Amino acid sequence: MDPEEMIERSPFVGYLGIEITRAEEGYGEATLEIEDCHAGPPDGSIAHGGVISAFADTVAGTATLPLAGRVTPTIDLRIDYLNPANCERLNGIAEVRRKGSSISIVDVEITDESGCEIATARGVFKVDNPKERSQWEDGWPKTESDVEE
Amino acid sequence: MDPEEMIERSPFVGYLGIEITRAEEGYGEATLEIEDCHAGPPDGSIAHGGVISAFADTVAGTATLPLAGRVTPTIDLRIDYLNPANCERLNGIAEVRRKGSSISIVDVEITDESGCEIATARGVFKVDNPKERSQWEDGWPKTESDVEE
Amino acid sequence: MDPEEMIERSPFVGYLGIEITRAEEGYGEATLEIEDCHAGPPDGSIAHGGVISAFADTVAGTATLPLAGRVTPTIDLRIDYLNPANCERLNGIAEVRRKGSSISIVDVEITDESGCEIATARGVFKVDNPKERSQWEDGWPKTESDVEE
Amino acid sequence: MDPEEMIERSPFVGYLGIEITRAEEGYGEATLEIEDCHAGPPDGSIAHGGVISAFADTVAGTATLPLAGRVTPTIDLRIDYLNPANCERLNGIAEVRRKGSSISIVDVEITDESGCEIATARGVFKVDNPKERSQWEDGWPKTESDVEE
Repeated sequence: MDPEEMIERSPFVGYLGIEITRAEEGYGEATLEIEDCHAGPPDGSIAHGGVISAFADTVAGTATLPLAGRVTPTIDLRIDYLNPANCERLNGIAEVRRKGSSISIVDVEITDESGCEIATARGVFKVDNPKERSQWEDGWPKTESDVEE
Repeated sequence: MDPEEMIERSPFVGYLGIEITRAEEGYGEATLEIEDCHAGPPDGSIAHGGVISAFADTVAGTATLPLAGRVTPTIDLRIDYLNPANCERLNGIAEVRRKGSSISIVDVEITDESGCEIATARGVFKVDNPKERSQWEDGWPKTESDVEE
Repeated sequence: MDPEEMIERSPFVGYLGIEITRAEEGYGEATLEIEDCHAGPPDGSIAHGGVISAFADTVAGTATLPLAGRVTPTIDLRIDYLNPANCERLNGIAEVRRKGSSISIVDVEITDESGCEIATARGVFKVDNPKERSQWEDGWPKTESDVEE
Repeated sequence: MDPEEMIERSPFVGYLGIEITRAEEGYGEATLEIEDCHAGPPDGSIAHGGVISAFADTVAGTATLPLAGRVTPTIDLRIDYLNPANCERLNGIAEVRRKGSSISIVDVEITDESGCEIATARGVFKVDNPKERSQWEDGWPKTESDVEE
């Protein structure tokens, strides 16, 4: 299974409507079309902050999952909101800033369809090659590279 | 409109299924029944990290909205994951740690139905209450541009 | 008093040995020569993490103080360590990512004399510029207490 | 060498004047007498934010070093300032919130001599039993328990 497909098979990623457009070792991209269900205010004009943090968490995984060949649990995430998400689409890119032996630090930038900065996030993710799978990973399929190990 | 109702009228809060159980000045609580759509892994065993960060953001608002009497936009949010959310329900409580003239700092603790700690979050929220010059600035000289004002 | 001088007059900035090299509205730079007193390990080979976080906090101020014309208290700061500071000098640059009515979000990048990334930090600072109701609040209903105002 | 002594042998910990008062597995305490050199404003009334973040980083280590029996490098640290440090002494306590296989999450609370909350911090620290020592640890002595391994 390729990394894009593996991430998109997550039920919550599908429930939100996130599409993974790139997932390479240390770099990835995703998009989210904003629908009525994503709104914070009742009149539907602006996406809820929780949509954006959930999107940021998922985008980060596009850069880390290919490194590990398996799911990379979030250890922590910080998100800063730069402008209201009064838009039709969110675009996110993720870049690994530090690749350690057991964790990676990832930067995520989120913009709207016009390039306006919506949010910036940074997180620490568990990215390693453990002897045994962690309890965080139960229920996830393996990538082909994982199977080959 | 009371604060609980105001928060629950948000389309995304409803889409996630969050129920607000308390919303007072500086303190609030909410719950979320975990459904299949919240799963991270395809087999549905553990809630996605994005569910938990979105829940944390919403729980924080239960403590800040009553302070401001209006929506209190998230400026930043930091979440640390303590245990996998392999559970039936998330319970969240929020407490304001600092109440400033324009922002508030809020702590959120998220547990499952058995009391196991799932995540802890902290955020800065825009909670306006304009006042005079803050006590943080005492003792500093002014720049010329400041004097000219 | 110009902003560089104003920051350097802080006793702790002098005690650490930080030199401010640029301080403009939304952008600034500083440097720190690493001395024996800055070491974490007893043999003096690597700067202590606390030196780097204190440096990051000061660097951030070079970009915010000129915006406000006065000291801009730190509300929160997150620092991520990328490589050990086994070096002779720290260079820091700060850029404002969001300029709000009462707060600003600042990014800080810290490298050593060879350009190696040592740490990256992000913080929220109190930078007052009171305005009217923010665009973040559009579309939300008001509570009764708000209507009564 | 006991953990308190090991931390206090750090040149920067000594330069700041931090005293370690307790260092156990998962819990620790330290204090810092505020001197003129710690001031942020020129008139010396309030401790600089960088003093407090450096203190928080050191306090966190009192809870993690005894777990690992060696230095525990900071991966990230987030600090929120609650009240100006217009005081004579900082007291800090650290508690491990999550003890993972390779990292630990630590909470730090900082108060002044009257019990007033000055800051709250949370960080992720590298706490493990690696086959080989990481490059972050060069130059540190080993504790007795480390030597016994």
